Amino acid sequence: MEWAVITTWEMSLKGCGITAEALRHQENLDEAVMKGINDVEDNPEYHSVGFGGGPDREGHVRCDGGFMDGDTLHFGAVGSMEGFRSAVRVAHGLVKGDANNFLVGPGAEKFAAEHGFERRDNLTEESKKSWEEEVEKRKKPLSAYDGHDTVCFLGMQNGRCVAATSTSGLFMKEPGRVGDTPLPGNGFYADSEIGAAAGTGMGEEIMKGALSFAAVLYMKQGYTAQEAADKAVMTLDQSLKKRNGYAQPMSLIVMDKEGNFGVGTNIEFTFCTASSQSGPTLYKAMPSEEGAVITKA
Amino acid sequence: MEWAVITTWEMSLKGCGITAEALRHQENLDEAVMKGINDVEDNPEYHSVGFGGGPDREGHVRCDGGFMDGDTLHFGAVGSMEGFRSAVRVAHGLVKGDANNFLVGPGAEKFAAEHGFERRDNLTEESKKSWEEEVEKRKKPLSAYDGHDTVCFLGMQNGRCVAATSTSGLFMKEPGRVGDTPLPGNGFYADSEIGAAAGTGMGEEIMKGALSFAAVLYMKQGYTAQEAADKAVMTLDQSLKKRNGYAQPMSLIVMDKEGNFGVGTNIEFTFCTASSQSGPTLYKAMPSEEGAVITKA
Repeated sequence: MEWAVITTWEMSLKGCGITAEALRHQENLDEAVMKGINDVEDNPEYHSVGFGGGPDREGHVRCDGGFMDGDTLHFGAVGSMEGFRSAVRVAHGLVKGDANNFLVGPGAEKFAAEHGFERRDNLTEESKKSWEEEVEKRKKPLSAYDGHDTVCFLGMQNGRCVAATSTSGLFMKEPGRVGDTPLPGNGFYADSEIGAAAGTGMGEEIMKGALSFAAVLYMKQGYTAQEAADKAVMTLDQSLKKRNGYAQPMSLIVMDKEGNFGVGTNIEFTFCTASSQSGPTLYKAMPSEEGAVITKA
Repeated sequence: MEWAVITTWEMSLKGCGITAEALRHQENLDEAVMKGINDVEDNPEYHSVGFGGGPDREGHVRCDGGFMDGDTLHFGAVGSMEGFRSAVRVAHGLVKGDANNFLVGPGAEKFAAEHGFERRDNLTEESKKSWEEEVEKRKKPLSAYDGHDTVCFLGMQNGRCVAATSTSGLFMKEPGRVGDTPLPGNGFYADSEIGAAAGTGMGEEIMKGALSFAAVLYMKQGYTAQEAADKAVMTLDQSLKKRNGYAQPMSLIVMDKEGNFGVGTNIEFTFCTASSQSGPTLYKAMPSEEGAVITKA
Protein backbone atom coordinates (compact mmCIF):
# COMPACT_ATOMS: atom_id res chain seq x y z
CA MET A 1 0.00 0.00 0.00
CA GLU A 2 1.10 3.57 -0.63
CA TRP A 3 -0.54 4.80 2.52
CA ALA A 4 -2.73 3.58 5.34
CA VAL A 5 -4.26 4.84 8.56
CA ILE A 6 -5.91 3.14 11.54
CA THR A 7 -7.62 5.03 14.35
CA THR A 8 -9.28 4.27 17.70
CA TRP A 9 -13.02 4.39 18.45
CA GLU A 10 -16.01 5.30 16.36
CA MET A 11 -15.52 8.96 17.29
CA SER A 12 -12.49 9.03 15.00
CA LEU A 13 -14.32 7.90 11.84
CA LYS A 14 -14.66 11.42 10.47
CA GLY A 15 -11.06 12.21 11.39
CA CYS A 16 -9.94 8.98 9.74
CA GLY A 17 -11.61 10.22 6.56
CA ILE A 18 -9.90 13.59 6.86
CA THR A 19 -6.49 11.93 7.20
CA ALA A 20 -7.28 9.58 4.31
CA GLU A 21 -8.27 12.46 2.07
CA ALA A 22 -5.06 14.31 2.89
CA LEU A 23 -2.93 11.24 2.20
CA ARG A 24 -4.80 10.62 -1.05
CA HIS A 25 -3.61 14.09 -2.06
CA GLN A 26 -0.07 13.23 -0.98
CA GLU A 27 0.00 15.73 1.83
CA ASN A 28 2.64 15.45 4.54
CA LEU A 29 1.99 12.42 6.78
CA ASP A 30 2.45 14.24 10.10
CA GLU A 31 0.07 17.00 9.07
CA ALA A 32 -2.45 14.52 7.69
CA VAL A 33 -2.53 12.58 10.93
CA MET A 34 -2.75 15.68 13.12
CA LYS A 35 -5.63 17.07 11.06
CA GLY A 36 -7.57 13.88 11.69
CA ILE A 37 -6.88 13.98 15.43
CA ASN A 38 -7.79 17.68 15.55
CA ASP A 39 -11.27 16.76 14.36
CA VAL A 40 -11.69 14.65 17.49
CA GLU A 41 -9.95 17.14 19.78
CA ASP A 42 -12.20 19.96 18.56
CA ASN A 43 -15.49 18.11 18.97
CA PRO A 44 -17.11 18.94 22.33
CA GLU A 45 -19.33 15.84 22.03
CA TYR A 46 -16.36 13.58 22.77
CA HIS A 47 -15.70 13.68 26.48
CA SER A 48 -12.33 11.97 26.56
CA VAL A 49 -10.29 14.15 24.21
CA GLY A 50 -9.55 17.88 23.96
CA PHE A 51 -12.45 20.35 23.93
CA GLY A 52 -15.17 19.17 26.27
CA GLY A 53 -12.89 16.51 27.76
CA GLY A 54 -13.55 15.14 31.23
CA PRO A 55 -12.17 17.39 33.99
CA ASP A 56 -9.90 16.10 36.72
CA ARG A 57 -10.88 16.03 40.38
CA GLU A 58 -10.23 19.77 40.62
CA GLY A 59 -12.40 20.60 37.60
CA HIS A 60 -9.55 21.26 35.17
CA VAL A 61 -9.23 19.64 31.75
CA ARG A 62 -5.60 18.57 31.58
CA CYS A 63 -4.51 16.76 28.44
CA ASP A 64 -1.88 14.22 27.39
CA GLY A 65 -0.58 13.64 23.88
CA GLY A 66 2.24 11.98 21.99
CA PHE A 67 3.80 11.73 18.57
CA MET A 68 6.52 9.39 17.28
CA ASP A 69 8.46 9.45 14.04
CA GLY A 70 9.17 5.88 13.01
CA ASP A 71 12.12 6.87 10.80
CA THR A 72 14.25 8.37 13.58
CA LEU A 73 12.45 6.93 16.64
CA HIS A 74 12.27 10.53 17.85
CA PHE A 75 9.17 11.35 19.84
CA GLY A 76 7.49 14.31 21.47
CA ALA A 77 4.97 14.21 24.29
CA VAL A 78 3.08 16.36 26.76
CA GLY A 79 1.38 15.34 29.99
CA SER A 80 -1.11 17.11 32.24
CA MET A 81 -1.24 20.22 30.02
CA GLU A 82 -4.06 22.73 30.39
CA GLY A 83 -5.18 25.57 28.18
CA PHE A 84 -4.23 24.53 24.66
CA ARG A 85 -6.29 23.39 21.71
CA SER A 86 -4.32 20.38 20.55
CA ALA A 87 -2.21 18.11 22.74
CA VAL A 88 -1.02 16.20 19.69
CA ARG A 89 0.25 19.36 17.97
CA VAL A 90 2.23 20.45 21.01
CA ALA A 91 3.61 16.90 21.32
CA HIS A 92 4.57 17.03 17.64
CA GLY A 93 6.37 20.32 18.31
CA LEU A 94 8.65 18.42 20.70
CA VAL A 95 9.65 15.75 18.14
CA LYS A 96 13.21 16.93 17.60
CA GLY A 97 16.61 17.22 19.18
CA ASP A 98 18.06 14.86 21.72
CA ALA A 99 16.47 15.84 25.00
CA ASN A 100 13.49 17.55 26.58
CA ASN A 101 11.02 15.65 24.40
CA PHE A 102 8.47 14.94 27.15
CA LEU A 103 7.21 17.96 29.09
CA VAL A 104 4.51 17.97 31.74
CA GLY A 105 2.31 20.44 33.61
CA PRO A 106 3.33 24.09 33.77
CA GLY A 107 6.53 23.33 31.82
CA ALA A 108 4.53 21.92 28.91
CA GLU A 109 2.22 24.93 29.04
CA LYS A 110 5.19 27.31 28.98
CA PHE A 111 6.64 25.53 25.95
CA ALA A 112 3.30 25.64 24.14
CA ALA A 113 2.86 29.34 24.90
CA GLU A 114 6.39 30.24 23.87
CA HIS A 115 5.97 28.39 20.59
CA GLY A 116 2.66 29.99 19.73
CA PHE A 117 0.40 26.95 19.95
CA GLU A 118 -3.27 27.83 19.90
CA ARG A 119 -4.73 28.39 23.34
CA ARG A 120 -8.10 27.06 24.43
CA ASP A 121 -9.63 26.21 27.77
CA ASN A 122 -11.03 22.78 27.02
CA LEU A 123 -13.60 23.01 29.80
CA THR A 124 -17.03 23.43 28.19
CA GLU A 125 -20.27 24.25 29.94
CA GLU A 126 -21.25 20.62 29.50
CA SER A 127 -18.00 19.14 30.84
CA LYS A 128 -18.16 21.55 33.77
CA LYS A 129 -21.71 20.40 34.50
CA SER A 130 -20.68 16.72 34.34
CA TRP A 131 -17.91 17.47 36.78
CA GLU A 132 -20.22 19.29 39.19
CA GLU A 133 -22.69 16.41 39.08
CA GLU A 134 -19.94 13.88 39.67
CA VAL A 135 -18.57 15.85 42.61
CA GLU A 136 -22.05 15.69 44.13
CA LYS A 137 -22.60 11.98 43.76
CA ARG A 138 -19.02 10.85 44.29
CA LYS A 139 -19.15 8.71 47.31
CA LYS A 140 -18.81 5.54 45.23
CA PRO A 141 -15.49 4.21 43.94
CA LEU A 142 -14.32 5.03 40.43
CA SER A 143 -16.05 2.92 37.83
CA ALA A 144 -13.68 1.00 35.62
CA TYR A 145 -14.37 2.77 32.38
CA ASP A 146 -15.44 6.33 32.95
CA GLY A 147 -14.50 7.94 29.67
CA HIS A 148 -10.88 7.31 28.95
CA ASP A 149 -11.18 6.67 25.25
CA THR A 150 -7.94 8.01 23.83
CA VAL A 151 -7.80 8.97 20.19
CA CYS A 152 -4.83 7.24 18.53
CA PHE A 153 -3.85 7.43 14.88
CA LEU A 154 -1.24 5.25 13.19
CA GLY A 155 -0.25 6.49 9.75
CA MET A 156 1.94 5.01 7.02
CA GLN A 157 2.96 6.80 3.84
CA ASN A 158 5.45 5.31 1.39
CA GLY A 159 7.05 3.21 4.11
CA ARG A 160 7.24 5.89 6.79
CA CYS A 161 5.24 5.16 9.95
CA VAL A 162 4.05 7.55 12.65
CA ALA A 163 1.96 7.16 15.79
CA ALA A 164 -0.04 9.98 17.36
CA THR A 165 -2.26 10.18 20.43
CA SER A 166 -4.41 12.66 22.34
CA THR A 167 -6.63 12.47 25.42
CA SER A 168 -7.99 14.43 28.32
CA GLY A 169 -7.34 11.34 30.42
CA LEU A 170 -9.43 9.68 33.03
CA PHE A 171 -12.52 11.61 34.11
CA MET A 172 -12.09 12.81 37.72
CA LYS A 173 -8.44 11.81 37.69
CA GLU A 174 -6.13 13.08 40.40
CA PRO A 175 -4.46 16.38 39.52
CA GLY A 176 -1.21 15.72 37.70
CA ARG A 177 -2.18 12.17 36.75
CA VAL A 178 -0.57 11.07 33.51
CA GLY A 179 -1.63 7.88 31.75
CA ASP A 180 -0.08 5.85 28.96
CA THR A 181 -1.04 8.28 26.18
CA PRO A 182 2.13 10.42 26.22
CA LEU A 183 4.51 7.59 27.11
CA PRO A 184 6.60 6.07 24.32
CA GLY A 185 6.43 2.28 24.31
CA ASN A 186 3.28 2.36 26.43
CA GLY A 187 0.66 4.51 24.71
CA PHE A 188 2.37 4.62 21.32
CA TYR A 189 5.37 3.37 19.36
CA ALA A 190 6.47 3.64 15.74
CA ASP A 191 9.38 2.12 13.86
CA SER A 192 9.27 2.53 10.10
CA GLU A 193 11.33 -0.65 9.65
CA ILE A 194 8.62 -2.69 11.39
CA GLY A 195 5.35 -0.87 12.04
CA ALA A 196 3.50 1.01 14.76
CA ALA A 197 1.06 0.53 17.63
CA ALA A 198 -0.99 2.63 20.05
CA GLY A 199 -3.19 1.87 23.03
CA THR A 200 -6.44 3.02 24.60
CA GLY A 201 -8.21 1.90 27.74
CA MET A 202 -7.08 2.13 31.34
CA GLY A 203 -3.65 3.70 30.93
CA GLU A 204 -2.28 2.37 34.21
CA GLU A 205 -3.00 -1.16 33.00
CA ILE A 206 -1.36 -0.62 29.58
CA MET A 207 1.71 0.75 31.40
CA LYS A 208 2.15 -2.58 33.19
CA GLY A 209 3.16 -4.27 29.94
CA ALA A 210 4.54 -1.59 27.57
CA LEU A 211 1.82 -2.70 25.17
CA SER A 212 2.75 -0.61 22.14
CA PHE A 213 6.41 -1.54 22.25
CA ALA A 214 5.54 -5.19 22.86
CA ALA A 215 3.35 -5.37 19.74
CA VAL A 216 6.01 -3.81 17.53
CA LEU A 217 8.67 -6.13 18.94
CA TYR A 218 6.44 -9.14 18.25
CA MET A 219 6.07 -7.99 14.62
CA LYS A 220 9.85 -7.70 14.43
CA GLN A 221 10.04 -11.29 15.66
CA GLY A 222 7.82 -12.47 12.80
CA TYR A 223 4.23 -12.15 13.99
CA THR A 224 1.66 -10.47 11.75
CA ALA A 225 0.06 -7.22 12.88
CA GLN A 226 -3.03 -9.09 14.05
CA GLU A 227 -1.05 -11.81 15.83
CA ALA A 228 1.16 -9.21 17.49
CA ALA A 229 -1.86 -7.19 18.67
CA ASP A 230 -3.54 -10.28 20.12
CA LYS A 231 -0.34 -11.55 21.71
CA ALA A 232 0.49 -8.23 23.39
CA VAL A 233 -3.00 -7.70 24.84
CA MET A 234 -3.76 -11.31 25.76
CA THR A 235 -0.39 -11.89 27.42
CA LEU A 236 -0.84 -8.87 29.68
CA ASP A 237 -4.55 -9.52 30.24
CA GLN A 238 -3.87 -13.09 31.35
CA SER A 239 -0.88 -12.12 33.43
CA LEU A 240 -2.90 -9.51 35.32
CA LYS A 241 -5.88 -11.80 35.84
CA LYS A 242 -3.60 -14.51 37.21
CA ARG A 243 -1.85 -12.13 39.64
CA ASN A 244 -4.61 -9.76 40.63
CA GLY A 245 -7.83 -11.55 39.73
CA TYR A 246 -8.88 -9.04 37.08
CA ALA A 247 -7.60 -6.92 34.22
CA GLN A 248 -8.94 -3.50 33.33
CA PRO A 249 -9.89 -2.50 29.74
CA MET A 250 -7.10 -2.39 27.17
CA SER A 251 -7.28 -2.06 23.40
CA LEU A 252 -4.44 -1.81 20.95
CA ILE A 253 -4.29 -0.79 17.28
CA VAL A 254 -1.35 -2.09 15.28
CA MET A 255 -0.12 -1.54 11.73
CA ASP A 256 2.85 -3.10 9.99
CA LYS A 257 5.10 -1.12 7.66
CA GLU A 258 3.16 -2.45 4.63
CA GLY A 259 -0.06 -0.98 6.00
CA ASN A 260 -1.64 -4.22 7.24
CA PHE A 261 -3.79 -3.74 10.34
CA GLY A 262 -4.27 -5.63 13.59
CA VAL A 263 -6.28 -5.03 16.75
CA GLY A 264 -6.09 -6.59 20.20
CA THR A 265 -8.62 -5.93 22.95
CA ASN A 266 -10.11 -7.35 26.12
CA ILE A 267 -13.39 -5.38 25.74
CA GLU A 268 -15.73 -4.45 22.91
CA PHE A 269 -13.83 -1.90 20.88
CA THR A 270 -14.45 0.10 17.71
CA PHE A 271 -11.81 1.34 15.29
CA CYS A 272 -11.52 2.80 11.82
CA THR A 273 -9.19 2.20 8.91
CA ALA A 274 -8.52 3.65 5.47
CA SER A 275 -5.81 3.08 2.91
CA SER A 276 -4.85 3.65 -0.69
CA GLN A 277 -6.86 0.48 -1.38
CA SER A 278 -10.02 1.06 0.69
CA GLY A 279 -12.12 3.91 2.01
CA PRO A 280 -12.72 4.87 5.63
CA THR A 281 -14.45 1.97 7.38
CA LEU A 282 -15.69 1.44 10.92
CA TYR A 283 -15.03 -1.94 12.54
CA LYS A 284 -15.92 -3.58 15.78
CA ALA A 285 -13.56 -5.91 17.66
CA MET A 286 -14.81 -8.35 20.29
CA PRO A 287 -12.46 -10.20 22.62
CA SER A 288 -12.30 -13.99 22.53
CA GLU A 289 -9.93 -16.64 23.79
CA GLU A 290 -8.44 -16.97 20.31
CA GLY A 291 -7.96 -13.22 19.94
CA ALA A 292 -10.02 -10.31 18.68
CA VAL A 293 -13.01 -11.12 16.45
CA ILE A 294 -13.36 -8.29 13.98
CA THR A 295 -16.45 -7.38 11.99
CA LYS A 296 -17.63 -4.34 10.07
CA ALA A 297 -19.65 -2.12 12.37
CA MET B 1 19.69 -17.04 46.09
CA GLU B 2 17.51 -15.87 48.94
CA TRP B 3 17.99 -12.24 48.08
CA ALA B 4 19.98 -10.06 45.70
CA VAL B 5 20.36 -6.41 44.79
CA ILE B 6 21.98 -4.59 41.86
CA THR B 7 22.37 -0.82 41.72
CA THR B 8 23.58 1.82 39.25
CA TRP B 9 26.82 3.81 39.50
CA GLU B 10 29.59 3.89 42.06
CA MET B 11 27.64 6.48 44.05
CA SER B 12 25.24 3.72 45.08
CA LEU B 13 27.88 1.42 46.63
CA LYS B 14 27.13 2.55 50.17
CA GLY B 15 23.37 2.35 49.54
CA CYS B 16 23.81 -1.12 48.05
CA GLY B 17 25.44 -2.14 51.31
CA ILE B 18 22.60 -0.62 53.32
CA THR B 19 20.04 -2.56 51.28
CA ALA B 20 22.11 -5.74 51.58
CA GLU B 21 22.36 -5.38 55.34
CA ALA B 22 18.59 -4.91 55.61
CA LEU B 23 17.90 -7.94 53.44
CA ARG B 24 20.36 -9.99 55.41
CA HIS B 25 18.18 -9.22 58.42
CA GLN B 26 15.07 -10.20 56.47
CA GLU B 27 13.61 -6.73 56.49
CA ASN B 28 10.83 -5.86 54.05
CA LEU B 29 12.15 -5.70 50.46
CA ASP B 30 10.49 -2.39 49.55
CA GLU B 31 11.84 -0.70 52.66
CA ALA B 32 15.30 -2.22 52.19
CA VAL B 33 15.53 -0.90 48.63
CA MET B 34 14.22 2.55 49.52
CA LYS B 35 16.69 2.86 52.40
CA GLY B 36 19.53 2.24 49.96
CA ILE B 37 18.21 4.79 47.47
CA ASN B 38 17.66 7.32 50.27
CA ASP B 39 21.39 7.20 50.98
CA VAL B 40 22.02 8.45 47.44
CA GLU B 41 19.12 10.92 47.46
CA ASP B 42 20.34 12.45 50.73
CA ASN B 43 23.96 12.91 49.67
CA PRO B 44 24.56 16.44 48.35
CA GLU B 45 27.77 15.28 46.64
CA TYR B 46 25.75 13.44 44.00
CA HIS B 47 24.47 16.00 41.52
CA SER B 48 22.01 13.85 39.64
CA VAL B 49 19.77 12.61 42.44
CA GLY B 50 17.77 14.26 45.22
CA PHE B 51 19.52 16.71 47.56
CA GLY B 52 22.04 18.78 45.61
CA GLY B 53 20.67 17.53 42.29
CA GLY B 54 21.18 19.55 39.14
CA PRO B 55 18.61 22.33 38.74
CA ASP B 56 16.55 22.77 35.61
CA ARG B 57 16.85 25.80 33.33
CA GLU B 58 14.83 27.86 35.80
CA GLY B 59 17.02 26.91 38.78
CA HIS B 60 14.59 24.46 40.37
CA VAL B 61 15.49 20.90 41.37
CA ARG B 62 12.58 18.83 40.06
CA CYS B 63 12.79 15.10 40.60
CA ASP B 64 11.52 11.91 38.96
CA GLY B 65 11.14 8.52 40.61
CA GLY B 66 9.49 5.15 40.13
CA PHE B 67 8.75 1.92 41.93
CA MET B 68 7.34 -1.35 40.57
CA ASP B 69 6.10 -4.42 42.41
CA GLY B 70 6.93 -7.47 40.33
CA ASP B 71 4.26 -9.60 41.99
CA THR B 72 1.28 -7.49 40.92
CA LEU B 73 2.93 -5.39 38.17
CA HIS B 74 1.57 -2.40 40.06
CA PHE B 75 3.75 0.68 39.89
CA GLY B 76 3.94 4.17 41.31
CA ALA B 77 5.78 7.12 39.81
CA VAL B 78 6.30 10.84 40.12
CA GLY B 79 7.67 13.26 37.54
CA SER B 80 8.92 16.83 37.79
CA MET B 81 8.26 17.02 41.53
CA GLU B 82 9.85 19.75 43.65
CA GLY B 83 10.22 20.17 47.38
CA PHE B 84 10.34 16.62 48.75
CA ARG B 85 13.15 14.58 50.19
CA SER B 86 12.67 11.26 48.40
CA ALA B 87 11.19 10.82 44.93
CA VAL B 88 11.32 7.06 45.31
CA ARG B 89 9.30 7.13 48.55
CA VAL B 90 6.56 9.25 47.02
CA ALA B 91 6.54 6.95 43.97
CA HIS B 92 6.25 3.97 46.30
CA GLY B 93 3.30 5.68 47.97
CA LEU B 94 1.49 5.52 44.64
CA VAL B 95 1.98 1.74 44.19
CA LYS B 96 -1.61 0.73 44.78
CA GLY B 97 -5.08 0.87 43.36
CA ASP B 98 -5.98 0.81 39.73
CA ALA B 99 -5.47 4.36 38.57
CA ASN B 100 -3.63 7.59 39.33
CA ASN B 101 -0.32 5.81 39.77
CA PHE B 102 1.80 8.36 37.88
CA LEU B 103 1.53 11.95 39.05
CA VAL B 104 3.52 14.91 37.79
CA GLY B 105 4.32 18.48 38.76
CA PRO B 106 2.01 20.31 41.17
CA GLY B 107 -0.30 17.28 41.33
CA ALA B 108 2.55 15.07 42.53
CA GLU B 109 3.54 17.73 45.07
CA LYS B 110 -0.04 17.94 46.35
CA PHE B 111 -0.19 14.17 46.78
CA ALA B 112 3.14 14.13 48.61
CA ALA B 113 2.06 16.97 50.91
CA GLU B 114 -1.33 15.42 51.64
CA HIS B 115 0.30 12.11 52.50
CA GLY B 116 2.89 13.60 54.79
CA PHE B 117 6.04 12.83 52.81
CA GLU B 118 9.07 14.65 54.13
CA ARG B 119 9.62 18.03 52.54
CA ARG B 120 12.99 19.32 51.41
CA ASP B 121 14.13 21.85 48.86
CA ASN B 122 16.79 19.86 47.08
CA LEU B 123 18.57 22.98 45.87
CA THR B 124 21.84 23.29 47.81
CA GLU B 125 24.22 26.23 47.80
CA GLU B 126 26.50 24.18 45.59
CA SER B 127 23.84 23.15 43.08
CA LYS B 128 22.61 26.73 42.96
CA LYS B 129 26.15 27.91 42.24
CA SER B 130 26.57 25.31 39.46
CA TRP B 131 23.34 26.53 37.96
CA GLU B 132 24.38 30.18 38.10
CA GLU B 133 27.73 29.36 36.47
CA GLU B 134 26.02 27.35 33.76
CA VAL B 135 23.55 30.13 33.06
CA GLU B 136 26.51 32.43 32.54
CA LYS B 137 28.43 30.26 30.15
CA ARG B 138 25.49 28.71 28.37
CA LYS B 139 25.87 29.76 24.84
CA LYS B 140 27.04 26.29 23.79
CA PRO B 141 24.69 23.39 23.08
CA LEU B 142 23.94 20.87 25.77
CA SER B 143 26.76 18.40 26.24
CA ALA B 144 25.72 14.78 25.90
CA TYR B 145 26.29 13.68 29.46
CA ASP B 146 25.85 16.51 31.86
CA GLY B 147 24.92 14.65 35.02
CA HIS B 148 21.98 12.42 34.41
CA ASP B 149 23.14 9.45 36.39
CA THR B 150 19.94 7.97 37.75
CA VAL B 151 20.08 5.78 40.82
CA CYS B 152 18.29 2.50 40.15
CA PHE B 153 17.95 -0.45 42.52
CA LEU B 154 16.66 -3.89 41.56
CA GLY B 155 15.90 -6.08 44.54
CA MET B 156 14.89 -9.73 44.88
CA GLN B 157 13.83 -11.42 48.10
CA ASN B 158 12.53 -14.97 48.17
CA GLY B 159 11.38 -14.76 44.58
CA ARG B 160 9.75 -11.34 44.76
CA CYS B 161 11.31 -8.70 42.50
CA VAL B 162 11.07 -4.92 42.69
CA ALA B 163 12.58 -2.07 40.71
CA ALA B 164 13.10 1.42 42.11
CA THR B 165 14.53 4.62 40.62
CA SER B 166 15.25 8.23 41.57
CA THR B 167 16.83 11.20 39.79
CA SER B 168 16.85 14.95 39.56
CA GLY B 169 17.05 14.49 35.82
CA LEU B 170 19.11 16.24 33.22
CA PHE B 171 21.04 19.25 34.49
CA MET B 172 19.57 22.43 32.94
CA LYS B 173 16.60 20.51 31.57
CA GLU B 174 13.56 22.39 30.34
CA PRO B 175 10.99 23.01 33.08
CA GLY B 176 8.58 20.10 33.21
CA ARG B 177 10.94 17.74 31.40
CA VAL B 178 10.41 14.14 32.43
CA GLY B 179 12.84 11.42 31.41
CA ASP B 180 12.66 7.64 31.47
CA THR B 181 13.12 7.32 35.25
CA PRO B 182 9.41 7.41 36.27
CA LEU B 183 8.13 5.59 33.17
CA PRO B 184 7.26 1.89 33.53
CA GLY B 185 8.81 -0.19 30.77
CA ASN B 186 11.29 2.55 29.98
CA GLY B 187 13.20 3.48 33.14
CA PHE B 188 12.16 0.43 35.15
CA TYR B 189 10.23 -2.83 35.00
CA ALA B 190 9.76 -5.75 37.38
CA ASP B 191 7.97 -9.06 36.98
CA SER B 192 8.57 -11.56 39.77
CA GLU B 193 7.92 -14.45 37.36
CA ILE B 194 10.85 -13.34 35.18
CA GLY B 195 13.06 -10.62 36.65
CA ALA B 196 13.60 -6.88 36.60
CA ALA B 197 15.51 -4.15 34.78
CA ALA B 198 16.20 -0.43 35.10
CA GLY B 199 17.98 2.14 32.97
CA THR B 200 20.26 5.14 33.34
CA GLY B 201 21.76 7.46 30.76
CA MET B 202 20.01 9.84 28.39
CA GLY B 203 16.37 9.17 29.21
CA GLU B 204 15.04 10.32 25.87
CA GLU B 205 17.21 7.68 24.18
CA ILE B 206 16.09 4.88 26.52
CA MET B 207 12.47 5.87 25.82
CA LYS B 208 12.98 5.14 22.11
CA GLY B 209 13.23 1.42 22.83
CA ALA B 210 11.42 0.69 26.11
CA LEU B 211 14.73 -0.72 27.35
CA SER B 212 13.62 -2.09 30.71
CA PHE B 213 10.58 -3.89 29.33
CA ALA B 214 12.62 -5.20 26.38
CA ALA B 215 15.23 -6.79 28.66
CA VAL B 216 12.60 -8.50 30.81
CA LEU B 217 10.77 -9.77 27.71
CA TYR B 218 14.04 -11.17 26.34
CA MET B 219 14.57 -13.05 29.61
CA LYS B 220 11.04 -14.41 29.30
CA GLN B 221 11.98 -15.61 25.82
CA GLY B 222 14.93 -17.57 27.19
CA TYR B 223 17.89 -15.20 27.29
CA THR B 224 20.02 -14.97 30.43
CA ALA B 225 20.09 -11.70 32.35
CA GLN B 226 23.40 -10.77 30.75
CA GLU B 227 22.28 -11.73 27.24
CA ALA B 228 19.02 -9.83 27.68
CA ALA B 229 20.83 -6.72 28.91
CA ASP B 230 23.25 -6.79 25.99
CA LYS B 231 20.53 -7.52 23.46
CA ALA B 232 18.27 -4.69 24.65
CA VAL B 233 21.00 -2.05 24.71
CA MET B 234 22.87 -3.14 21.57
CA THR B 235 19.71 -3.48 19.47
CA LEU B 236 18.63 0.06 20.29
CA ASP B 237 22.16 1.46 20.08
CA GLN B 238 22.68 0.00 16.61
CA SER B 239 19.21 0.98 15.44
CA LEU B 240 19.76 4.61 16.48
CA LYS B 241 23.24 4.78 14.95
CA LYS B 242 21.92 3.41 11.68
CA ARG B 243 19.04 5.89 11.54
CA ASN B 244 20.52 8.99 13.10
CA GLY B 245 24.29 8.50 12.93
CA TYR B 246 24.75 8.35 16.71
CA ALA B 247 23.32 6.98 19.92
CA GLN B 248 23.44 8.76 23.26
CA PRO B 249 24.57 7.05 26.50
CA MET B 250 22.41 4.20 27.78
CA SER B 251 23.11 1.68 30.52
CA LEU B 252 20.84 -1.03 31.84
CA ILE B 253 20.95 -3.19 34.96
CA VAL B 254 19.09 -6.50 34.80
CA MET B 255 18.38 -9.24 37.32
CA ASP B 256 16.53 -12.50 36.79
CA LYS B 257 14.15 -13.92 39.38
CA GLU B 258 16.93 -16.17 40.72
CA GLY B 259 19.11 -13.16 41.47
CA ASN B 260 21.52 -13.51 38.53
CA PHE B 261 22.78 -10.17 37.23
CA GLY B 262 23.35 -8.68 33.80
CA VAL B 263 24.41 -5.28 32.51
CA GLY B 264 24.24 -3.70 29.08
CA THR B 265 25.83 -0.37 28.21
CA ASN B 266 27.15 1.71 25.33
CA ILE B 267 29.49 3.73 27.60
CA GLU B 268 31.78 3.06 30.54
CA PHE B 269 29.45 2.30 33.41
CA THR B 270 29.84 1.35 37.07
CA PHE B 271 27.38 -0.69 39.10
CA CYS B 272 27.19 -2.53 42.41
CA THR B 273 25.79 -5.86 43.47
CA ALA B 274 25.23 -7.81 46.67
CA SER B 275 23.39 -11.01 47.46
CA SER B 276 22.92 -13.69 50.07
CA GLN B 277 26.04 -15.26 48.54
CA SER B 278 28.35 -12.26 48.15
CA GLY B 279 29.01 -8.90 49.75
CA PRO B 280 28.59 -5.47 48.18
CA THR B 281 30.94 -5.19 45.22
CA LEU B 282 31.66 -2.45 42.72
CA TYR B 283 32.01 -3.42 39.06
CA LYS B 284 32.88 -1.62 35.87
CA ALA B 285 31.25 -2.44 32.53
CA MET B 286 32.83 -1.43 29.22
CA PRO B 287 30.95 -1.64 25.93
CA SER B 288 32.23 -3.93 23.17
CA GLU B 289 30.81 -5.37 19.98
CA GLU B 290 30.15 -8.66 21.77
CA GLY B 291 28.42 -6.99 24.70
CA ALA B 292 29.45 -5.49 28.02
CA VAL B 293 32.86 -6.50 29.39
CA ILE B 294 32.57 -6.58 33.15
CA THR B 295 35.43 -6.39 35.66
CA LYS B 296 35.69 -5.64 39.35
CA ALA B 297 36.34 -1.93 39.82
